[in-house]
Amino acid sequence: MTGHTASTGRLFAFEGGEGAGKSTQIRQLAEHLRAIGYTVRTTREPGGTPLGEAIRGVLMGEYAEPMPAMSELLLMFAARAAHLAEVIEPALAAGEIVLCDRFTDASFAYQGAARGLGEAAVATLESLVQGERRPDGVLLFDLPVADGLARAQKRGEVNRFDQETRVFHERVRDSYHKRAAGAPERYAVIDAAASPEKVSASVIAAVGRWL
Amino acid sequence: MTGHTASTGRLFAFEGGEGAGKSTQIRQLAEHLRAIGYTVRTTREPGGTPLGEAIRGVLMGEYAEPMPAMSELLLMFAARAAHLAEVIEPALAAGEIVLCDRFTDASFAYQGAARGLGEAAVATLESLVQGERRPDGVLLFDLPVADGLARAQKRGEVNRFDQETRVFHERVRDSYHKRAAGAPERYAVIDAAASPEKVSASVIAAVGRWL
Repeated sequence: MTGHTASTGRLFAFEGGEGAGKSTQIRQLAEHLRAIGYTVRTTREPGGTPLGEAIRGVLMGEYAEPMPAMSELLLMFAARAAHLAEVIEPALAAGEIVLCDRFTDASFAYQGAARGLGEAAVATLESLVQGERRPDGVLLFDLPVADGLARAQKRGEVNRFDQETRVFHERVRDSYHKRAAGAPERYAVIDAAASPEKVSASVIAAVGRWL
Repeated sequence: MTGHTASTGRLFAFEGGEGAGKSTQIRQLAEHLRAIGYTVRTTREPGGTPLGEAIRGVLMGEYAEPMPAMSELLLMFAARAAHLAEVIEPALAAGEIVLCDRFTDASFAYQGAARGLGEAAVATLESLVQGERRPDGVLLFDLPVADGLARAQKRGEVNRFDQETRVFHERVRDSYHKRAAGAPERYAVIDAAASPEKVSASVIAAVGRWL
């Protein structure tokens, strides 16, 4: 996006597979930005609003039949529509910096690529729901699939997505990389296997360039 | 749709405002069709599957902020995608007659027209989720808005949609009429203010023509 003025907020999305350390880095970046004078909103998808959290509950549920990929994709965008209307757009209009744990790149990676719905279906919903809204920067926390899953399991936070096959998670990673390669000015690929200090420094450097 | 053979199922949707008597008529039509040898599946939207009923719960819930119309529309189609995959398409493939209490015309009427999202947004989702699938016939239970709301209130079944303004429900009715006028061969407008016997006879006559 172009044409930002000092009073316009910015949207930064944190993306990547499970166990890549996004939550910790979001918290630390928020602290850093607040310390230098920015107003920062941290949020997550799916979720971010009472409706979105209710939808997250539906998404994480277990049902007699596997959830159709298209239902999953539409639920993600139903939550996103509320998240944009009630949280993200008002915060941006107020000049805040919004740090979002997962956004639409996750829909391209998980439902579009890994579940096989295709990029066009996701892009159709992206423009229906978001209009021209896109993240001003995407931080891609990159980690070999086996390492990420091992980390997530160690934390005991295994959900319906973590239980997918390794091939599924490789497709997710591959999709993220392709999207990053397609618009390098808006993406920062962060080596999530590095030390927390190094990761934090990379995150601050990337956001500093975008700000 | 064209090209039905004897072994192909048929999908009939029952549409109309609140309190129009659809449920009773669906039950009676199912009995009638079974008596003359058809295999009949009755179902409803939003709902029809465990996932769909969970989404119905989210749709009927009350939240701190009004649900964005786009979220409502996407939730309807998320439930519909599962309903099609798990119930409707398998039943049609098995040669059954599916009687569905509300289908996509309701999305055009409620979210497209009454909530103002527009026909194009609904049509985009219709083709994304349904491909070429459309009802073989739509029975539109027509009733003056005030009468329908009075009936629904009398039954004590007042939900988030019933609480909308009269103008909202007039837009719903108007949209249904326009869609019926645009494809009269696929729609039967039923005078739901008539006696139950007359309504039942009109329903059987309409379905008889389509079969």
